[in-house]
Amino acid sequence: MMVEHTVKAFDEDITRLRGLIAEMGGLAEVAIHEALQALVNGDEELAAEVVKRDKKLDALETEVDAMAVRILALRAPMADDLREIVAALKIGGVVERIGDYAKNIAKRVGRIEGRARFEPLLLLPAMGEVASEMVHDVLTAYAARDPVVAREVIERDDKVDAFYDSIFRNLVSHMVENPSTISSAAQLLFVARNIERIGDHATNVAEMVHYSATGSYPSDIER
Amino acid sequence: MMVEHTVKAFDEDITRLRGLIAEMGGLAEVAIHEALQALVNGDEELAAEVVKRDKKLDALETEVDAMAVRILALRAPMADDLREIVAALKIGGVVERIGDYAKNIAKRVGRIEGRARFEPLLLLPAMGEVASEMVHDVLTAYAARDPVVAREVIERDDKVDAFYDSIFRNLVSHMVENPSTISSAAQLLFVARNIERIGDHATNVAEMVHYSATGSYPSDIER
Repeated sequence: MMVEHTVKAFDEDITRLRGLIAEMGGLAEVAIHEALQALVNGDEELAAEVVKRDKKLDALETEVDAMAVRILALRAPMADDLREIVAALKIGGVVERIGDYAKNIAKRVGRIEGRARFEPLLLLPAMGEVASEMVHDVLTAYAARDPVVAREVIERDDKVDAFYDSIFRNLVSHMVENPSTISSAAQLLFVARNIERIGDHATNVAEMVHYSATGSYPSDIER
Repeated sequence: MMVEHTVKAFDEDITRLRGLIAEMGGLAEVAIHEALQALVNGDEELAAEVVKRDKKLDALETEVDAMAVRILALRAPMADDLREIVAALKIGGVVERIGDYAKNIAKRVGRIEGRARFEPLLLLPAMGEVASEMVHDVLTAYAARDPVVAREVIERDDKVDAFYDSIFRNLVSHMVENPSTISSAAQLLFVARNIERIGDHATNVAEMVHYSATGSYPSDIER
């Protein structure tokens, strides 16, 4: 009975830990979406809201860390359970960083002038959508401990990279033809780069989910 | 005697774990330095070497993770010891990411033309030096569990940010005046941004060292 009780308590702990990470993921997705919406519409109020709400993600990460430490101290989990806690610690950290990228995009909203002239303003939200779906799906993979979905997320990162290359070239051409817009275009370069990094981080989480589910990193993917 | 034996074994474990992280820090410092050296001299061979050597950092991070899990499983540490292992896991992850930024700088070396014309090529190594010293000092703070040094590292991040702002303005002016160099200048913008992120990451580690040493985050510093 004692063992059963402990197992049940551990399961409840880990479910709460996973719940916190799911909550972080939801906030990060919203932040990406709204940061890009603010960018496209020049909506500085929404941008300020995204920046402000990032504090919630920071607080949740601290909560994940504290809960993981508590579980490790109270339950001294072994093998798979231990690996699970370590994965949660790492994934919480990465999702917090994804939120930082969204915040960074939001911070650039006020620094862009003449937004109607930029073709990438059409491409960036589409790029953000792909990255945001990667974040969503990798957290689904995490919840379901599904290495197959994790692999699919990793494969989708190429699409984000292709968007990035295309937007980079487009912005450089735009700068060459319109030197007066260079400062704004440079901000958009960084936005594209931030989204590209979000894709990379979703990929990192996918690798961790794969590790957590199988005990190994996807062998055919360069880290 | 049993308790003493366990304590000694834990101390040996944690010393090895710290040794691995110190080794990662040393590699990351060298990578930053050499990536910027390659950039300034247009040395694509050295750049390729930096990219190649990043795999060693990835392997060391995996080793840190595996060792941390092993210590948690074998010793089921409590309180400070547990916090120490969790900090090592996180710090290993961040140092690996610092290495990624250096690798990213190295990858840009071949994409820059007409390097003699760029004034930031003088500023970037100086900026990199500050960031690299932050990495060095924060790992010293980590080794000595010294929250005072950790705080000093956090304060130095302003200097990196000031470099970044100055280089950003300089590059945008340069682009406006020399549209033909925009593509190369954009690469240098990203280099500056990568160094700025290295400073941010050293700051994050400093916060963790502070947390690990005192049980709290530096309260007056915005996270």
